[in-house]
Amino acid sequence: MSTASQARRRKGPDELEIIAFERGRFTSYSSCGIPYLTGGTVTDVGRLVVRTPEQFAEKQSIDARIRHEVISVDAAGGAVTVRDLERGTEEQVAFDHLMIATGAVQSLLPLPGADSEGIFGVQTLDDGIEIIRELDERKPSRAVVVGGGYIGLEMAEAMTLRGLHVTLVESAAQPMSATLDSDMGALVADAMRSMGIDVLTEEPASGFEASSGRVTAVVTDDRTLPADIVILGLGSRPNAALAETAGIALGESGGIRVNERMETTAERVWAAGDCAEKRDRLTSKGVSIALGTHANKEGRVAGINITGGNEHFPGVIGTAVTKVCDLEIGRTGLKEDKAEAAGFDVMSVTVDSVTRAGYFPGKEPIKVKMIFERDGGRLLGAQILGRESAAKRIDVCATAIWSEMSVQDVMEMDLSYAPPFSPLWDPVSIAARKAVERLGDA
Amino acid sequence: MSTASQARRRKGPDELEIIAFERGRFTSYSSCGIPYLTGGTVTDVGRLVVRTPEQFAEKQSIDARIRHEVISVDAAGGAVTVRDLERGTEEQVAFDHLMIATGAVQSLLPLPGADSEGIFGVQTLDDGIEIIRELDERKPSRAVVVGGGYIGLEMAEAMTLRGLHVTLVESAAQPMSATLDSDMGALVADAMRSMGIDVLTEEPASGFEASSGRVTAVVTDDRTLPADIVILGLGSRPNAALAETAGIALGESGGIRVNERMETTAERVWAAGDCAEKRDRLTSKGVSIALGTHANKEGRVAGINITGGNEHFPGVIGTAVTKVCDLEIGRTGLKEDKAEAAGFDVMSVTVDSVTRAGYFPGKEPIKVKMIFERDGGRLLGAQILGRESAAKRIDVCATAIWSEMSVQDVMEMDLSYAPPFSPLWDPVSIAARKAVERLGDA
Repeated sequence: MSTASQARRRKGPDELEIIAFERGRFTSYSSCGIPYLTGGTVTDVGRLVVRTPEQFAEKQSIDARIRHEVISVDAAGGAVTVRDLERGTEEQVAFDHLMIATGAVQSLLPLPGADSEGIFGVQTLDDGIEIIRELDERKPSRAVVVGGGYIGLEMAEAMTLRGLHVTLVESAAQPMSATLDSDMGALVADAMRSMGIDVLTEEPASGFEASSGRVTAVVTDDRTLPADIVILGLGSRPNAALAETAGIALGESGGIRVNERMETTAERVWAAGDCAEKRDRLTSKGVSIALGTHANKEGRVAGINITGGNEHFPGVIGTAVTKVCDLEIGRTGLKEDKAEAAGFDVMSVTVDSVTRAGYFPGKEPIKVKMIFERDGGRLLGAQILGRESAAKRIDVCATAIWSEMSVQDVMEMDLSYAPPFSPLWDPVSIAARKAVERLGDA
Repeated sequence: MSTASQARRRKGPDELEIIAFERGRFTSYSSCGIPYLTGGTVTDVGRLVVRTPEQFAEKQSIDARIRHEVISVDAAGGAVTVRDLERGTEEQVAFDHLMIATGAVQSLLPLPGADSEGIFGVQTLDDGIEIIRELDERKPSRAVVVGGGYIGLEMAEAMTLRGLHVTLVESAAQPMSATLDSDMGALVADAMRSMGIDVLTEEPASGFEASSGRVTAVVTDDRTLPADIVILGLGSRPNAALAETAGIALGESGGIRVNERMETTAERVWAAGDCAEKRDRLTSKGVSIALGTHANKEGRVAGINITGGNEHFPGVIGTAVTKVCDLEIGRTGLKEDKAEAAGFDVMSVTVDSVTRAGYFPGKEPIKVKMIFERDGGRLLGAQILGRESAAKRIDVCATAIWSEMSVQDVMEMDLSYAPPFSPLWDPVSIAARKAVERLGDA
């Protein structure tokens, strides 16, 4: 819908007809908001919907058809086959340009009992609505969250806020193992435990027990965890099947291969969002990252290009932020092992600081880790853990990585200081200074 | 003391004797904390003192002598004349290297009645202690703050927090006229008025009325403002008199001229901190900015170089942040008129956004202004107004300006997103996007 909106801004309804097919019941909603909806922080489902089909029709002359699934693409012939999921009918719809924005599908565990009632994914708004219904109607008291990535952590918070006792089950040695170094991940686990969440690591789920078709426990190699509700937070992968079947090339990460203009390998067929592969600017490799901010930017680029412009999506560096209750987590760039795997000779530093001047009330601890190149000190990655106002500081590191600054540059640059906002040296500057000292010692 | 500490880290007491002379009663304290001390946010004077002379002696073998004023420098001869302010004695002390760190002196108004009791500057910790004593002993109810820069605003907050009715008197058309564009400054005035602070602009103070030697009113061209206490927040200028008398060159801004190594024009004489001129990286001109973070970094560079190293202080871009009650203000780079005066052909955009996803509770308004070059879109300046977690986002703009990014770069780069921390497009990204659109239209 970002593509549609951008295209409409550039071409009026007389020049360009825009039809959007959506197999679900909602258009343009915030997937990232689902954990906050289920946790009760956001109280109205409708608040997550940015624009309804009626609004698209009225305000932008965009014909958005929900409960319509595109089941095949004839790229060469310039047509899609669409199924009306309510009526069960099918039709062919011709296109001059096709945007494939099929998003991501939740990674599932093909485990015994995985289809029991009471086990929920967190991929669509309908998933969120079902979880809320379950919470309201059945009043479960024990939740097991399977998977310790972003969604797993956010759902652990959500279930905690709902008053459930939460156990997080993670196969890796730490939560967020895909995005945080193990030392930082271990601190996340510690912080979650101090919130009363049971965090079990190196303990993959191996199945589910059920009674009368309803889940009663999550089984791991080590134990059986009684559960009234199970949330699957296993991450997602690009939903590229439709494109692949149509003969459109996928990239090394499994997402639809696109160039910087968001063109696929098929003429007049474009892709954007979670289904489309992104280029990691640090490794030049294709990556799949499901994140609304990339999706929206890519959609904008495609919408401009479809209407005759020439914009480029320049890739990503993996910046992300989340929180678990009052623990904030930010990260950007390459984590240590990924940087090494990409061939960089890396060093790292971790510093402890505070978010305000040492004498200023309300200061909170903040930990900043920086990963940088031994030769020249180029900043390659950063991770931040902290509370109140800590995590968004990752954007400074993201900006520095984006513009290929060295830790020396980061140390020297002019960041803002006043006692309510930062120590005399900002925590990011302190980490950079320690990195510079480490380079001098090496 | 930053120079002293850094030098000591590199050379032990056997190799290097370090003596520091301080005419006041405190070493190494946070000047920036004084408004928060007087406002009662920080309750203990001692908390602002980072390290006492006793601690310097014990922990670092640095001989820090308070109440000792250096009254003249013989640069060629390698000696200073020092007066012991307690004993009234003078002595000559020889040096191999001299660091001049005489800081700033408060700008004063040579107005009738300015020496009355009850009128206070805010330059030294002693000033802060005197203000607190006045508040405690005399329980004034009406404060007039003269000057609407950083210190003026922070002292207006402090007096408000102390329960006084506050009137701010400013000669320019808006508060913060030296650092914010007038449109943003006008919003600061509006916000302060909504807090119950009377903000009078284009109304310079012309004198003070007093009774029995004690101030009773501030007089402007338009009116007489009754006052029980008057705070002078008129900014400061480099305290360069000692250096100038010694024949050391000053720069165009009136600060001591230094190179990137912090060397003055006299051999073996160094300068750092508020007394030393800084180079504005955007205009290449010399500027005087009194700010602890620059002072500390410059001191570090000098300490390394005095002990045989070779570090450089690369200049500043004028990043700053402050708050007045819950209004946060951040700025970096050149404001619009300064950019034009420096010869740039500039454009600007201002956008309104929020600090969290639109549906997320606790979101607050945030306004971002960007100033950029018409040809190529290089970001030259940014200003942010907002509440909770708004102002520190200026650091992203500061990093972008430091690395000479264009607004296109800023729009494209990978900033963190999650509903509790940002809308899908970060407010900084939205401003950059609007700037890119404006460039496209131009």
